Amino acid sequence: MTTWISRYPEDRLKARERSAPTGGSLAGVRFAVKDNLDVAGLPTTAACPALEDRVATHDAEAVRRLAAAGAVPVGKTNMDQFATGLVGTRSPYGACRSVASPDHVSGGSSSGSALAVATGQVPLALGTDTAGSGRVPAAFNGLVGVKPTRGLVSTRGLLPACRSLDCVTTLTRTVAEGRAALRELAGYDAADAWSRAAPPVAPQGIAASMGVVGVPSGPLDLDGKHEEAWRGAVARAYEIADAVVEVDVGAFLEAARLLYQGPWPAERFAAFGTLLAPDGPHLDPTVRRIAMAGRLVTGEQVFAGLDRLAELRRATEPVWWDVDALLLPVTPTHPTLAEVAADPVGVNARLGTYTNFVNLLDLCAVAVPFGERADGLPFGVQFVAPAFADGPLLDLASRWCGERDAGVPIASGRTQLVVAGAHMSGLPLNRQVLGVGGRLYRRARTAAGYRLFRLPGDGLPRPALAATGDGPAEGIAVEVWDVPEQGVGALLDAIPAPLALGRTQLADGTWATAFTVAEGGLRGAEDITECGGWRAYLRRREEDATSPAWRGAM
Amino acid sequence: MTTWISRYPEDRLKARERSAPTGGSLAGVRFAVKDNLDVAGLPTTAACPALEDRVATHDAEAVRRLAAAGAVPVGKTNMDQFATGLVGTRSPYGACRSVASPDHVSGGSSSGSALAVATGQVPLALGTDTAGSGRVPAAFNGLVGVKPTRGLVSTRGLLPACRSLDCVTTLTRTVAEGRAALRELAGYDAADAWSRAAPPVAPQGIAASMGVVGVPSGPLDLDGKHEEAWRGAVARAYEIADAVVEVDVGAFLEAARLLYQGPWPAERFAAFGTLLAPDGPHLDPTVRRIAMAGRLVTGEQVFAGLDRLAELRRATEPVWWDVDALLLPVTPTHPTLAEVAADPVGVNARLGTYTNFVNLLDLCAVAVPFGERADGLPFGVQFVAPAFADGPLLDLASRWCGERDAGVPIASGRTQLVVAGAHMSGLPLNRQVLGVGGRLYRRARTAAGYRLFRLPGDGLPRPALAATGDGPAEGIAVEVWDVPEQGVGALLDAIPAPLALGRTQLADGTWATAFTVAEGGLRGAEDITECGGWRAYLRRREEDATSPAWRGAM
Repeated sequence: MTTWISRYPEDRLKARERSAPTGGSLAGVRFAVKDNLDVAGLPTTAACPALEDRVATHDAEAVRRLAAAGAVPVGKTNMDQFATGLVGTRSPYGACRSVASPDHVSGGSSSGSALAVATGQVPLALGTDTAGSGRVPAAFNGLVGVKPTRGLVSTRGLLPACRSLDCVTTLTRTVAEGRAALRELAGYDAADAWSRAAPPVAPQGIAASMGVVGVPSGPLDLDGKHEEAWRGAVARAYEIADAVVEVDVGAFLEAARLLYQGPWPAERFAAFGTLLAPDGPHLDPTVRRIAMAGRLVTGEQVFAGLDRLAELRRATEPVWWDVDALLLPVTPTHPTLAEVAADPVGVNARLGTYTNFVNLLDLCAVAVPFGERADGLPFGVQFVAPAFADGPLLDLASRWCGERDAGVPIASGRTQLVVAGAHMSGLPLNRQVLGVGGRLYRRARTAAGYRLFRLPGDGLPRPALAATGDGPAEGIAVEVWDVPEQGVGALLDAIPAPLALGRTQLADGTWATAFTVAEGGLRGAEDITECGGWRAYLRRREEDATSPAWRGAM
Repeated sequence: MTTWISRYPEDRLKARERSAPTGGSLAGVRFAVKDNLDVAGLPTTAACPALEDRVATHDAEAVRRLAAAGAVPVGKTNMDQFATGLVGTRSPYGACRSVASPDHVSGGSSSGSALAVATGQVPLALGTDTAGSGRVPAAFNGLVGVKPTRGLVSTRGLLPACRSLDCVTTLTRTVAEGRAALRELAGYDAADAWSRAAPPVAPQGIAASMGVVGVPSGPLDLDGKHEEAWRGAVARAYEIADAVVEVDVGAFLEAARLLYQGPWPAERFAAFGTLLAPDGPHLDPTVRRIAMAGRLVTGEQVFAGLDRLAELRRATEPVWWDVDALLLPVTPTHPTLAEVAADPVGVNARLGTYTNFVNLLDLCAVAVPFGERADGLPFGVQFVAPAFADGPLLDLASRWCGERDAGVPIASGRTQLVVAGAHMSGLPLNRQVLGVGGRLYRRARTAAGYRLFRLPGDGLPRPALAATGDGPAEGIAVEVWDVPEQGVGALLDAIPAPLALGRTQLADGTWATAFTVAEGGLRGAEDITECGGWRAYLRRREEDATSPAWRGAM
């Protein structure tokens, strides 16, 4: 039995259950805790037996928050030692195996947490995810793995792997259960220097409702059975998304390689290097080798790595103006224990191909199951989105899983406004929409038949959307904003002729108010329909398609 | 003559003037450029003569933007080599002296840029500021030195000192000139990985109009003449501010020490270490020693330093809920060249006491003159504020300098709303105000005579402001929000009795709509007036005074 490292004795568990608040949203829910997070009265070993005498006196903040909502921790789960691994076999407490196959790894490092849920012992487990440790075991055991935005859940009481990257995650059978847990887990913690206050309103470019999904444009590194399952997943994306956009993910994957080829092993050494000497059977040899290599990294290399990461982050940013979330496989393959044993570093490194970049680039992610491969092994995919898009991302994951997706209603007194040009997120006139209290509701496309024009004139280029009837079947890329009804008049006052507000049909058949052009206003206009949208047109012109200087305030 | 390292020959200058656009906001303005920024046709030496054959083919982006507005670069200025120094004497091209005293240093590293303006040769110069290099020479030569938010001005075409910290700055005689330049300089640059898009609306907690100034609560490290001048500056703060608040600046000053006692010399080595061998008279020995020491920093130390910085940033954050800007001296002293020569590292390090932390903590700053010390040397102070507060900070600096401060008008159709409790920035109900399109207008205090209560009841604690007539003379801390008139009704719908909206008088004598309490509503309420404001009350209760979880969206 490799799932658990320690468990509460029955009397202690009963005592916790008796003392748990009964009115909370998670009343009575038993949960497992990865053994790098403190649970009062149990040791925190991070799968290093030498730490078995380190009994925690307090719950980690994440555990405390779940317990405050009525949930009850039952014990600590096995893991890749010091959360350094994606396989689940790097543990003196024994190698974990997938719930679906004794020959195949469980994935890690949150291996025991995944098994505790997958085997039905608890409905909820806490994991952690620095490079994919929450998502990979979810995928290999048919579970939902929520990897929230960095800092959204406190890491106080965590034995760290990489302080600047570590995230506390959940493992559950359903998105709804992960969401219920995250609602309690999320919260600013002034005592955790890496905690971040969630912004009071969604950051720029994050839509309340996610409809446009990006998929990789080029071939991916995938084993045969994974490849076949992935093709099915892409087909499913077309079913559940309003639009699917092909995206070059090269810079994302390069950032993933940077995690181990770059300087971050030094952060592991800084976090737990003092526990690596003297050597002995309490240390996993592969974990020790990786972290000890971090000792050789120079300060110069760290700063060079941070600089390279800034470049890669920059290279990936434009993607998030076009799509709400990326759909990716969680791993390229599902290895056997024998394959891992034969090449412990190489197989593990390949497993992080699609997960390693997420924390480095400050993104959030949800791993969701997508049935089984042809050989019956669970297959998992992940949705990835910018920081603090956690809520809409969970809605998208719910839709994927066929769970009830309540959707995001437009409040009374507010209305939808379709923008197709300089009023879009990050473009120069977006401030007008924000200024009346607008919020990005969803990315969308118009119905077939619309054409996009650039109006003549100097200064800020101005677009016009026109229902000419002969536009492309796939429509034009637009954003739907949620604005107070009273704000629409103010916006109308601010736009010069021949721009106008009128009704426009979207790809889903609904009608909404949109910036359009008054009759006769297209004289001298340039037809830019072939670009497919205003941002693509700006990019073609090599104009700055992102935020203008904040000049109005200076 | 130590101001310049290279200048355009007359014919080349004339050619640039002829080709400059005439309609720009800076048409015909000649400006000097620190010699670590590229100017086409001149070498970029960073005060290292070995680089004199490195003639730039293009203008740095900052130079290009000024030139696009009609300004004309005339030449490259002397500096502490590789921008490593705050003294202005670390240059093979000669030590720079203050415009006011041949015995005293000019300050650096933007020494020549300051002298070019202070001696009247040009009205504008570009400097850079990693640890204070733009502000210290401003202070030592009676100038305004604008150190914008990191990333607001592109650093493309800069020979870097610390890539993650470097900022391009301006040196001018007036705030108005600095502002005019910054309006042209600021702009997202997709080709600079460290450039940042300014947010379309002010970040949380940044008021459109700055009225509450923080001053250090404890004693400062200041020489006698500096101390005397500083006392005058604090007195002046009381004249120009709506309120002055004493602040513990200990964590700020500890972050300042971290710059050189921590791992950042390794970033300098990463940036220009390849230029430090072989040694020779082209290298300043002190600069070389500092940067070479960076070679010995380990990767582990860098990550530990970043972790410590995160802790210090956390420790400083609460300050920004209480004050709009901090007032600090620029330096503790104004050393002579002899003093610097006797202890080149120690004197320099002390100069950075009040400047080093600004970029590390992601703040913006403006150095402004405050007359002269008793011995006739110029004395400078600085206002410091959070990232992207540049515009309001410049308004405050204008007020300080007695320049015209247009103020920030409330637009028609909008009104002021005074909040004193859970609707304040970062508190749980702030989203209601943001949701109707509200913007933080200014921090303020009520007129004398108001008292603050906590209403009885469970759940979210609710405050009530009441004009009892016997409240303290200094009033109660409030925030004034700028909201659409139509939004006020929606807010009123959202507040439960006995809260109400009514007119409240502020310390400046004006009246505005405020959250107040209906007659009879104070039954059972707790008088918390002595706290002085709602945030202070929450802190006393050790409640989380910052942002709630972003639960509404999950």
